Amino acid sequence: MSTLEDTIAAIATPVGDAGIAVIRISGPRAIEICDQRFRGKRPLSGVATQTAHYGDFENRNGERIDEVVATIFRGPHSFTAEDVVEIGCHGGSYVTKTVLAALVESGARHAEPGEFTKRAFLNGRIDLSQAEAVADLIHARSRLSHQASIQQLSGRISQQIQRLRKSILDISSLLELELDFTEEGIDLLKKEDLLGGLTQIISSIQQLINSYERGRIVRDGVKVVLAGRPNVGKSSILNSLLNYDRAIVSEVPGTTRDTLEENISIGGLLFSITDTAGLRDSFDKIEEMGVERARKELQSADVILLVMDSSSRYLPEDFRLVRECELEAKKLGGRLLILENKIDLPDANNENQEWSWLNGVTRIRLSAKTGQSIEQLRSNLLECAQGSERSFEAGSAIITSQRHRECLSRAKTFLETALVQGEKGTSPELIADNLNLSTKALGEIIGEVTSDEILNNIFSHFCIGK
Amino acid sequence: MSTLEDTIAAIATPVGDAGIAVIRISGPRAIEICDQRFRGKRPLSGVATQTAHYGDFENRNGERIDEVVATIFRGPHSFTAEDVVEIGCHGGSYVTKTVLAALVESGARHAEPGEFTKRAFLNGRIDLSQAEAVADLIHARSRLSHQASIQQLSGRISQQIQRLRKSILDISSLLELELDFTEEGIDLLKKEDLLGGLTQIISSIQQLINSYERGRIVRDGVKVVLAGRPNVGKSSILNSLLNYDRAIVSEVPGTTRDTLEENISIGGLLFSITDTAGLRDSFDKIEEMGVERARKELQSADVILLVMDSSSRYLPEDFRLVRECELEAKKLGGRLLILENKIDLPDANNENQEWSWLNGVTRIRLSAKTGQSIEQLRSNLLECAQGSERSFEAGSAIITSQRHRECLSRAKTFLETALVQGEKGTSPELIADNLNLSTKALGEIIGEVTSDEILNNIFSHFCIGK
Repeated sequence: MSTLEDTIAAIATPVGDAGIAVIRISGPRAIEICDQRFRGKRPLSGVATQTAHYGDFENRNGERIDEVVATIFRGPHSFTAEDVVEIGCHGGSYVTKTVLAALVESGARHAEPGEFTKRAFLNGRIDLSQAEAVADLIHARSRLSHQASIQQLSGRISQQIQRLRKSILDISSLLELELDFTEEGIDLLKKEDLLGGLTQIISSIQQLINSYERGRIVRDGVKVVLAGRPNVGKSSILNSLLNYDRAIVSEVPGTTRDTLEENISIGGLLFSITDTAGLRDSFDKIEEMGVERARKELQSADVILLVMDSSSRYLPEDFRLVRECELEAKKLGGRLLILENKIDLPDANNENQEWSWLNGVTRIRLSAKTGQSIEQLRSNLLECAQGSERSFEAGSAIITSQRHRECLSRAKTFLETALVQGEKGTSPELIADNLNLSTKALGEIIGEVTSDEILNNIFSHFCIGK
Repeated sequence: MSTLEDTIAAIATPVGDAGIAVIRISGPRAIEICDQRFRGKRPLSGVATQTAHYGDFENRNGERIDEVVATIFRGPHSFTAEDVVEIGCHGGSYVTKTVLAALVESGARHAEPGEFTKRAFLNGRIDLSQAEAVADLIHARSRLSHQASIQQLSGRISQQIQRLRKSILDISSLLELELDFTEEGIDLLKKEDLLGGLTQIISSIQQLINSYERGRIVRDGVKVVLAGRPNVGKSSILNSLLNYDRAIVSEVPGTTRDTLEENISIGGLLFSITDTAGLRDSFDKIEEMGVERARKELQSADVILLVMDSSSRYLPEDFRLVRECELEAKKLGGRLLILENKIDLPDANNENQEWSWLNGVTRIRLSAKTGQSIEQLRSNLLECAQGSERSFEAGSAIITSQRHRECLSRAKTFLETALVQGEKGTSPELIADNLNLSTKALGEIIGEVTSDEILNNIFSHFCIGK
């Protein structure tokens, strides 16, 4: 673990050409180091906290690198609770990197990924689940994922975990008090109160664990895979879905184009749609070849959209593909929607006869060209998201982190053991041990109990500059 | 042209996931609009200029969008010389766009590209050539291009243009004064002083015009094209060049990978290297097919690096390719370097005999694999850049903008006409007219004389948020 005595610096804004970039520097020498290179009206060491100062930023030969605005945040009233300077310079990678290099030359160290947020945690300004929320907030792609992370950031999960811990500690301290009075035979905690209390806590924890599946969808989006033979209109359907809200779809270079994946937002929920156009040949031969990649896409889908061309006579291969998709969807609990596209053209099939063999699969007859029933497709997609929106809107806390779920599961296991022990009348000492282990597991979520390994693992997934 | 009464807002940092993003808002209502959505200790309307304030940024339903830091710059001490608020929020496209949307909902208008800088110009804080330098600075990719733009930003070009204009105006006012005294026959300006003065000014302008070729190279880099038959090691040579300074090479997503173009910096100068691997087939058949694209790449190159495999016996086709590249290079004044690669392997050719027919072309025998003579290749590349570094280092002003060169050429033409008129003894009135036209042309560079069309053309090439 890095020492907090270092002063760290990093580019805090994304790389690219834009009006402004911000270089952040934090630590005991932050202001002094900036003063070596900053030429304003006054040295930064003499200015008040939370003030912004215009000046030249120079390299060590006294040549101007840029005109900058340096904003001073003296600890503890800063992001890291240490002295922080934010240097706003012209955007553009050369300028930005040169400013950072000059700071490093003057004594700052390149920050590791997530190190600013880690310091905010280590300095006690935020707890661990709040620190994790910072990363989630940055990666939010939809209204609901944004909402979940901002609530976590403001301490909602933390408070709920604290309440659970307090309930366990209350029981546990009564048990320990009882130990002191064992010989007097005084019974401070009735058995039914113990069991009732534990049952209630276990149920609250189970609720949080249950929220994770919704949380995953809120955070990562509903995974939709578009499948179908060539020229049935897969890309057109993707485009008509996209056209609805192109403006609010997040466009991050490198995430969508490369992977044939587009994100859309329906009802505030994120749907990541993978067009299998790139797998076209594979899908043609899916039965014969069992192509691994195509299968994986289908198996990991929350929803498979199998597109068919209703203006062409369906062939046995088409129905084989339907059955194949149905089987793959079922393996991991996905949903299958069959989209009969091109209904603006004459129908080449006998609707009722051909589908009698297939029960319980939703079919939507639509036209990507005219937009007919695209709205219905959107409703069906939202419905497939299993009511995650409604439950979330109702205001219950939601777990989006796998780490949190794992801690909760461990806490629950200890409590269940304690419950069995309580029923059997095991000694209060042993029960109290399990209760303590369970509060420790909960403490890991908010970082009250933690290890370097856990911290490093969490913060190494952050971007540099955060 | 947009009115300055609007209040404009835009995301000023690049799009992408990072620690911080900055949304900038400028105009008479900037502070008031922010106050509608910002919840800090105090409303921003009551705080001092150049102070930073922590608070919640809310949507119109009072739901928190993010924790932000709002920094206030009251006009005229701001980037635009208007009231400006910079809202620092968590990076990430969803959060950032949502904050911007809330500002627009509250009465701000989406800023057009370059509109902040345009306002700085219209409000008289910087002149036009300084405004253009802002864009150059952001796009700087090497030490020299950075240096050129920072000098232009600090007013170096502006001062030189002002001096030239003043010299012309001095002559011109003497001429006009003479007109008033014509009848008295008083000769205020001797003919030889007129001719001498104009000649000197023309020569200074010509110097600036000459600096443009260097300026183009400083700004856009030296264009190097790697050519050669398959498997001679083009990509390996590119890689060994890159390995030298991978760290200071600018990595902007979407610019390099897509176009097979990599930027390297040698001696502070930018070299953009196009690997014609993508044109491989074309190059094989270059003579027969005359492929347009391959030819274009070769013709527009400042330097062609023709790679050959010295471990294979050279064939007549190889020499045809040499001659072809030599011809293409000569068309637009490019240079040809022949790289005999793979000298770590036994040489399959008779060095002296085979090259006797080819005079005056530099050959470098190297090995991309072992790195042998790669340093020499770097020196040769730098040398090909025609001494642009030395001249620039010497401190003379350098023109990097085609628009500036065009204005200078026009100014020069008017002065040359005036010079001819002076020699012929044409009336001072007509000479003064040409002098005035020439000062106008110079005035366009710094924006003292300008039109909406020129301004829109300049600023539309800026990025939004600048």
